[in-house]
Formats: sequence, C-alpha cells, structure tokens
Amino acid sequence: MKALVYHGPGQKAWEDVPDPTILKPTDAIVKIDTTTICGTDLHILKGDVPAVTPGRILGHEGVGTITEVGSAVTDLAVGDRVIVSCVSACGKCDFCKKGVYSHCQADEGAPGIGWIFGHLIDGTQAELVRVPFAETSLYRVPEGVPDELAVLISDILPTGHEIGVRYGAVSPGDVVAVVGAGPVGLAAITTAALYGPSRVIAVDLDANRVEQAKRFGATDGVVSSDADWKEQVFALTDGLGVDVAIEAVGVPATWDMSLEIVRPAGHVANVGVHGKPVTFKLDEKWIENLTITTGLVNTNTSPMLIKLLAQGKLDVAGFVSHHYALSDILDAYETFGNAAETKALKVVLTA
Amino acid sequence: MKALVYHGPGQKAWEDVPDPTILKPTDAIVKIDTTTICGTDLHILKGDVPAVTPGRILGHEGVGTITEVGSAVTDLAVGDRVIVSCVSACGKCDFCKKGVYSHCQADEGAPGIGWIFGHLIDGTQAELVRVPFAETSLYRVPEGVPDELAVLISDILPTGHEIGVRYGAVSPGDVVAVVGAGPVGLAAITTAALYGPSRVIAVDLDANRVEQAKRFGATDGVVSSDADWKEQVFALTDGLGVDVAIEAVGVPATWDMSLEIVRPAGHVANVGVHGKPVTFKLDEKWIENLTITTGLVNTNTSPMLIKLLAQGKLDVAGFVSHHYALSDILDAYETFGNAAETKALKVVLTA
Repeated sequence: MKALVYHGPGQKAWEDVPDPTILKPTDAIVKIDTTTICGTDLHILKGDVPAVTPGRILGHEGVGTITEVGSAVTDLAVGDRVIVSCVSACGKCDFCKKGVYSHCQADEGAPGIGWIFGHLIDGTQAELVRVPFAETSLYRVPEGVPDELAVLISDILPTGHEIGVRYGAVSPGDVVAVVGAGPVGLAAITTAALYGPSRVIAVDLDANRVEQAKRFGATDGVVSSDADWKEQVFALTDGLGVDVAIEAVGVPATWDMSLEIVRPAGHVANVGVHGKPVTFKLDEKWIENLTITTGLVNTNTSPMLIKLLAQGKLDVAGFVSHHYALSDILDAYETFGNAAETKALKVVLTA
Repeated sequence: MKALVYHGPGQKAWEDVPDPTILKPTDAIVKIDTTTICGTDLHILKGDVPAVTPGRILGHEGVGTITEVGSAVTDLAVGDRVIVSCVSACGKCDFCKKGVYSHCQADEGAPGIGWIFGHLIDGTQAELVRVPFAETSLYRVPEGVPDELAVLISDILPTGHEIGVRYGAVSPGDVVAVVGAGPVGLAAITTAALYGPSRVIAVDLDANRVEQAKRFGATDGVVSSDADWKEQVFALTDGLGVDVAIEAVGVPATWDMSLEIVRPAGHVANVGVHGKPVTFKLDEKWIENLTITTGLVNTNTSPMLIKLLAQGKLDVAGFVSHHYALSDILDAYETFGNAAETKALKVVLTA
C-alpha cells in the first residue's frame, strides 16, 4: 500500500510500504476512506515529539471501512463504516475503568498507550491501518453523517470539548476566552456553546481567524497583535478577567496570555501541544485560586458528539476548508502548513 | 497598645502603637488572647510580599474576646470569645456569593480583600485588632476548645484542608504525597485522612519532620535528601506516581518534586506561598491530564473543622510545639524561624 512515512525532522514521503496485518485477536484492519492532518503532525515534523522515530506512518484521524477483524472482535464486522479514534484503549485497565482512556496501561510494545497512531505505531495517513483494541477504539458512523464531518470526531471535536471546555469547567454565564482560533480552538468555541456561557471571546494574532471564529459561536473577538488586546478582554469581563481561558496553540506566549487574562478562581485549560517548558508565575498566582489543566483527549464524549453531529446540532461543516485526494497528501501538508496564507482549517483527504 | 510592627525586610519591633478603633459599622475590636506565627509572616519578613509596607502590624491568626462592635453588628457581642479568620470577606459580593471569600471584592482601601490582616491592614500580633466585616470573618469558639487549638482554625487547618486536600480532590483509595511536613503540610496530612486515602506519604528534607508526620496521619515517609527519594515514592504507588501531590513549602524545588511524582490524570495542589516563578515543563506535561490548583483559603470549611475540633475528631494538639507570652514575640519569631534546629511547629503566644 501507499502511506505517508516520517523520515526524521522536516522529512516525509508518500511511498510504498507493506500492508498492515492482524497482530492480535482484538485488532481490526481499516481501509482509510477519509483522513486529515492535525497540528500535532506539524509538531512531529518539526521534531517536537521525539518519541516518533523515522519510518513511522503519520496520522491519527480517519474514517474508513473495516476489511478484516481479529478473532476476538465480535461487535464489529467487515464492511462496517467506522471512525478511527486518535486514542487507543484496552477498556480494561485501571485507567480505562476510570474513563482515563488517554493513559490506558495496555502494552503495545511498551506499557501505556492512549495516543499511539502516527506516534508509537503506524497511523492513518495511509491506504490501510491496523487498529489495536478495535472494539474500544472505533465508532460506527451513523447514517447521513458524511465522512468529512465524521473525521472531526477522531480528534479535534472531542479534544476541544473535553480538554478545553470540560476540563475548563465552562458553566452557564461564564466568560470564556479561547486563545488560538485554529481548528482545535474552533472546536472548543463550538462546543463551549453547549454550556450556556455569557460570552465566548476568540483571541488570535490573525484578524481573519478572529472574524471567522464568530461563524462558529464566538460572541466577541480580540486580535492579540493589538497593543491593548488585554484591556479589550478586561473590558468584556467587568475588569476582572475571564472565568475560563482555553489555550489552543501550544507556545509559551499563548500560555502567558491565558494566565494574564484569567480572573481569580478561574480555570486555564491547556489544549495546545507544547514543545518547550513555560514559566509559571507562581509568585503572583499562588494566591489566585486558579485551576490549570492539561491533557490528551479521553474520547469519553465521542459517542455524545457523534449523536449531536447526526442530529445536525453541531454546525461544523465550515471547519473543512480544503479537499485533496489522499495521493496528493504532500500538497495537502503544504496547504495546511501555510495556514496563515492559505487560510486552511481542516484539510480533508479522500481515498 | 503594644504590637509587632514590620519596618521593612528583616526588620520588626514590639512597640507602642495607637489602639485600633471602629471605622465602619460592620467592624469589631477584638482583644487578642492567643496568636501565633505563620510561615507567611517569615515570607513577608524576607521581603517576598511587597504589598506589605513598613509600619504594618503583622499577623493573621488569633483567638480573642470582643471588646467593641460597630452599629451593624447584631449577631456578635462584647465578651464573645472568637476566632479571627485570616480571610476577611463581606459576604455580599459576587465572589463571596460563590464561596470564593478569598477574593472578596469589598473595598478596604483598595478593592479586593480576602487575606488583608498583617498584609493590607493591621494584623493580630498585637494586644488589640480591628476586624472588618466582623460577622463574616469571626467564629465563636465552642465550649471546651482551648485557645491554642482554636487558633489553628484561623489559617492552617482550613488552608491545608481546602487548598491542599479539597483542591487536590483527595478521594477514597488515593495515594497522597504531602511535600513539606511543616505546620501547613501537617494540616493537609491530618485532614486528608477524612477522605479515606490508601496512603499519605510525608515528603520532607528533614528526617525528623518525616517521622513526626506519622503521628499526624502520614502512613509513609520519604526523606527527600535521599538520592533515590523519587524511586521510594514510586515504589509506594505501583510505579505510576501519586494520585495527589500537595506542595506545602513554596519554593521551585518542591514545585518540581510535586510535578515529578504525580501520575497521569493526577492532581497537584499548590499550598505554598511562592516568592519566585517556577518552570512548568508543559512540553512533558501537556499530555498528562493533570489538574494543578493554587489558592488562598476560602474558609468555607472552617465551621465544619471547628465542629470536628469540638468533637475531638481532629488530633492536632501536637501541632503546638512552643509557648510564649505575647510580649516575648521576638523570641518566638527566633524559635519559629529556626525550625530546623528548634523543631518548632506552631509557636503559640498568649496575652
């Protein structure tokens, strides 16, 4: 088959590789019909995620059709149309029992899985993918949900919702700022609306992204290259700062911004994938009764989000900005990697 | 009257000052019968808390007798024996309504109060103290509770409990580490037991403090000057780290230690008063589903703790290591400030 293979920082190729095979009774093989590129893939290509070694097939998002199942798989069958979750989980270990699927302790080469596709095992930017723990890591796609919306369930919708909105404890009447209005930021903005906030402020360096965020539920926007951006946020929050700041970029500057605009007793939910440590001003913040969270998606809410998607209650069609054939994935990376110019959000690839 | 006055970093004096007077109808004047010294007072004397200006009377803990009340005070009377809470709150603003008394927005010179005694207004290391918002900041002492235990309700018991144990979300079966076994750490250790943890590990540089912590509910102890201290913690936690790490010192090293020993999906509750920023390794921790909290005590649980104290259900008598006359407060500071040598925990001063 063909697949996108990582060859070390800055290097990748669409090339011939062996087809995946069933290795364990709980595996399935899925033919990828639709996949997409995540900001995390760009982090990997920058060398920010050293656990990804050369030779790895990238990608952790996809929708496809089951072509083979292991002997222990009884609830899924060949021909089923499924969403591949970015998080793999055994469903049986202590962490899975607590719903912390992101830190499943099963052994897939080394103990501790969670996010392994395109990271510790081969991923979904390929014609075929082996899915471990198929029954706890795949979701059937409901009738009427197109692939390009279903693929948003692989990662960004549950990530924005769980790690941004739910970890941030967004509650009725809250003022929420989402720092970074890229795809995951938009997923947080859209799903924050489920909890009745009084305002959702999109904060981004790019004025276009700020405007665009208003189409997805942001009630206000602040362009963070404005010298008085912080005063603009405080003017929207009775001068006290936001109740919840959701960091959706993954660089020290946006961490700092999130901490600067949160009010006492507020929440900072870090969603961004960081490549560097940050400075935490505990000398100022020890007294502020803050709650700061980090995390990888658990997919606890994926079934719920699939239901809302099937009911047309999540208006996310506009998340997809570009379409490519899977074989043109190198062009798709080019477009996604230059989002400031191309205005790319999610770039969808179809087999 | 006599009071302990701060005269800038490293300088303090027990000297004559004017008696406090009622300034607002909601005030009370309390004659201090018993007070104590907090680690925060030492931070102030080091110059770590620049909001404290020369001329300020120090201290935010005390038990005393009401000598005068303002015209709006109807539920307290002259002669009542009361605990002075370290946090002052109006009980009426939006933050108070939410139970976040630590960030009360009332105006006592500048908007936003909370911890003001010995900080923004004159404190309790004095013969008399003016207590603003008396009815929402004083608690009657139940019969049979001696002053030297009641004074633990002013700050350290609710601080250890609320900011350590409750913010850390200690739950049945959890393994909890308390990093720093000084008075506030001991308050966290003692109150953690209320929630049924499987282990409470006291971690401290000082082997004596670690041993002593076992008298207050620690099930295990680790001396952090041991080269393998971290391995010792992991050996007690199935190799995964603790569910809850409570930082009870306030220096970068103990912040780092707390982050190093917490397991994925665990909690780090910062209780320490920090004078410097810390490094937060978000490049490692973004993926770990951590919850990190900071805070000043809200005193939400002070009435509950008073009840347990009155019932003899909090075995905290051993928290008090030294007794002094109030007029010997300079000697008491000497003892408390050299705790490594003197083995001081709480140093109680009696008028």
